Amino acid sequence: METPRSVHHIGLAVDDLDGALDTYERLFAARLEQRTRVEEQGVEAASIRVGDSRLELLGALGEDTPVGRFLAKRGPGMHHVAYEVDDLRATLARLSEAGAELIDETPRRGMFGLEVAFVHPDSVHGVLSEVVSVG
Amino acid sequence: METPRSVHHIGLAVDDLDGALDTYERLFAARLEQRTRVEEQGVEAASIRVGDSRLELLGALGEDTPVGRFLAKRGPGMHHVAYEVDDLRATLARLSEAGAELIDETPRRGMFGLEVAFVHPDSVHGVLSEVVSVG
Repeated sequence: METPRSVHHIGLAVDDLDGALDTYERLFAARLEQRTRVEEQGVEAASIRVGDSRLELLGALGEDTPVGRFLAKRGPGMHHVAYEVDDLRATLARLSEAGAELIDETPRRGMFGLEVAFVHPDSVHGVLSEVVSVG
Repeated sequence: METPRSVHHIGLAVDDLDGALDTYERLFAARLEQRTRVEEQGVEAASIRVGDSRLELLGALGEDTPVGRFLAKRGPGMHHVAYEVDDLRATLARLSEAGAELIDETPRRGMFGLEVAFVHPDSVHGVLSEVVSVG
């Protein structure tokens, strides 16, 4: 099926990954699911669960990285919304047909074992949107 | 229980509510759940479902409104994350004890029949956060 099952996660850019983990544990009883560091993308990320939902906390490994540039421009805050789909290639074909500007024309390997592709925020009223498929 | 069940909705500020509804229907097979206009808050909002998840599209009824000022400052995009809890008063007491800065010290009537309270983004790494209880 090409239509999303649900929001897979909400991506949040943070200036202090350990501090943010502590905050979400303290305020919203978050549980750490996975944590990873991807040097070539300049990001350290934590996947956390709040109840049944999932947040992805994104920290920058330097200023000249995608998350570092986002933080410099916008400050910490909401970064993207990711939708889970079954068939990522079919979804991208349908999005492209519908006129969406794809940042990734084909699926690529994301963090936490996901196949991912991003849709440009200009196509989605300012919201950087991701479609992901699991495993 | 005071800990969130899940994300209740993701709030998105949009500059064109009808256009955004059309975009989410076209790209992500969204279904309109409810739509409301609250003159005294200067907002027109649509609650939509994408798969099992919920988004709240927020349009401004004028420039000098909360959403209007957000749009002028940040442009359209992600506005807040709302968590569903069973006991909103107990949750607010616990958040306050944990040092969170509450925008609403007590629950107030929100849109779509929800009881709501907002937590200041400074307490949540730049993310305006809402706790809601249903009915």
